[in-house]
Amino acid sequence: MGRMDTDTTGAWLSRDELRDARERLPILYVDLVPVRVDERSTVTSIGLLLRATSEGAIRRELVSGRVLYHERIRDAIMRHIEKDLGPMALPQVPLAPQPFAIAEYFPTPGVTPFHDPRQHAVSMAHVVVVMGDCAPSQDALDLAWLSPQEAMDLARTDEMSGGHGVLLRQALAHLGFAV
Amino acid sequence: MGRMDTDTTGAWLSRDELRDARERLPILYVDLVPVRVDERSTVTSIGLLLRATSEGAIRRELVSGRVLYHERIRDAIMRHIEKDLGPMALPQVPLAPQPFAIAEYFPTPGVTPFHDPRQHAVSMAHVVVVMGDCAPSQDALDLAWLSPQEAMDLARTDEMSGGHGVLLRQALAHLGFAV
Amino acid sequence: MGRMDTDTTGAWLSRDELRDARERLPILYVDLVPVRVDERSTVTSIGLLLRATSEGAIRRELVSGRVLYHERIRDAIMRHIEKDLGPMALPQVPLAPQPFAIAEYFPTPGVTPFHDPRQHAVSMAHVVVVMGDCAPSQDALDLAWLSPQEAMDLARTDEMSGGHGVLLRQALAHLGFAV
Amino acid sequence: MGRMDTDTTGAWLSRDELRDARERLPILYVDLVPVRVDERSTVTSIGLLLRATSEGAIRRELVSGRVLYHERIRDAIMRHIEKDLGPMALPQVPLAPQPFAIAEYFPTPGVTPFHDPRQHAVSMAHVVVVMGDCAPSQDALDLAWLSPQEAMDLARTDEMSGGHGVLLRQALAHLGFAV
Repeated sequence: MGRMDTDTTGAWLSRDELRDARERLPILYVDLVPVRVDERSTVTSIGLLLRATSEGAIRRELVSGRVLYHERIRDAIMRHIEKDLGPMALPQVPLAPQPFAIAEYFPTPGVTPFHDPRQHAVSMAHVVVVMGDCAPSQDALDLAWLSPQEAMDLARTDEMSGGHGVLLRQALAHLGFAV
Repeated sequence: MGRMDTDTTGAWLSRDELRDARERLPILYVDLVPVRVDERSTVTSIGLLLRATSEGAIRRELVSGRVLYHERIRDAIMRHIEKDLGPMALPQVPLAPQPFAIAEYFPTPGVTPFHDPRQHAVSMAHVVVVMGDCAPSQDALDLAWLSPQEAMDLARTDEMSGGHGVLLRQALAHLGFAV
Repeated sequence: MGRMDTDTTGAWLSRDELRDARERLPILYVDLVPVRVDERSTVTSIGLLLRATSEGAIRRELVSGRVLYHERIRDAIMRHIEKDLGPMALPQVPLAPQPFAIAEYFPTPGVTPFHDPRQHAVSMAHVVVVMGDCAPSQDALDLAWLSPQEAMDLARTDEMSGGHGVLLRQALAHLGFAV
Repeated sequence: MGRMDTDTTGAWLSRDELRDARERLPILYVDLVPVRVDERSTVTSIGLLLRATSEGAIRRELVSGRVLYHERIRDAIMRHIEKDLGPMALPQVPLAPQPFAIAEYFPTPGVTPFHDPRQHAVSMAHVVVVMGDCAPSQDALDLAWLSPQEAMDLARTDEMSGGHGVLLRQALAHLGFAV
């Protein structure tokens, strides 16, 4: 969640109102780990977005975004995958709504492994298989597909900050990999 | 969530501001199923709150309430158990933050099995063992301990509306009972 | 598990040896709930096998079978789906190995909701999306696709005995349905 | 599972018969991560058994053992905790039977991160809170309580082999720690 939130189209709050709410209430998010799998559903690669920060640093990120008012979680998952990976990504939304992890992002660093200077966000984390063609849309520079081992190593570096690296490693542990 | 929300102490929003936010954002909740267990952690009874509605009807409810700004989920679970079951309830907060179910309460009936006329609430549902003495506090008339079978039957009646009955049966299924 | 086990091809035990082991050790199974989903992964129908018992009664069953020696669980899931639903079923094996339920089948009725007169079986239960064409193979009379509501109702009748009905309702609860 | 299995009392198989079954069937196990928690159920320490191998090396291990014929999983969890941590450990058996991970131990190294030269074992992994006094019994040299960070570091060393280190790190990820 280290990037600007650009859910302006379709959002139900003006930029000022959203800023206001963010100082008062926990904001509901989804964090999504896009994966490709083989015919036995073993994860073969993990998709990470490449973004440039306003300071010019490069960051690797999960697909992430808010759940809107009157939006179902499975619709939010679909919308954010399509927003970040393009309309041809063909995501398989998880069958059950229970996340593999709950990430509590606090504006104060150190309360949890997750940090978001803008807000207190509570994020439901899911692994999402994408079957189609992915193309980074919006403000991402690129989308890279990494092997589970490469993703695991990258997740421990400064390229994944604010907790996305932690969440990625928790996802790999959940999937049965040796983290 | 069929009752008035009375989190006024400790809340970070005035009543007007909360009403405003409720028309704009999904509000984060916890729904808690208080249980007693035997020495092998088999659930022996389930605690339900008895409340009177403003129309004079009687309702059975789970322990339920908002997660506040800058509050950890495990602290919200502890706070709501103590608020509704008293300070001597000695709850065992779940070890892991993943809920057994996510209940999406919509202000529009029928979108999901969960309905809350006041708001769009997304609730993380947990089963919570209580080891100590429970006494209904605040606005509940009584706290009743039911056997799993009694709870299952009651959950299908009008006494548990808005989705709490559904969530209770999902909890029993999760615990391995024949629902 | 109310039917004869016909894992003779590919099994590593003779019929006599398997009978012997069944009197000594818990036997590892998988129980699988085949489902079809819409584009947002909402379950639209559930597949149940129709079998005739040796007494001529009709039973609805889940896909079910043993995990073999040196077989990975995801391979066992794939094998049993293809054995019962045919080679064109195109199952999506679950990403993570954790089951939504563990069913403990005892030879003694009443210990758990699950009963198998032949053995003590411990079964890991998974929901499996099938994308392709399904055709009942082997000893099933038919494969029926039911709506979630129809499946829920059928699961409470004598047509689903031994625990498959219980497991089906636990699956629907896990998926967020009102059971 | 790097140690000799000494479930001779209470087992339903002779040593020869068990050896025989191990060459034919997957054997059902439980792997247990004993933890101590604070009043909000945050894990404060993790208990690891210290054992000497026949070659004189020192190993750190989880509590682990077979599920016996006609034994419920919750009884197997209780029995193995008491066998390894003593009768005063006061374990809180998990409420629900679903494990946080399934570890598939193969006699062939490299099939999964889990390896057991004696057998194909399928293990259901649970985190178990112990409230009482623990004393290593049977063949363990000692029981050490480590902080989550110490346990995480130790889990990556040769002191935890065969997969127990992997499982411990998966447990910590499941509990929300940064692995």
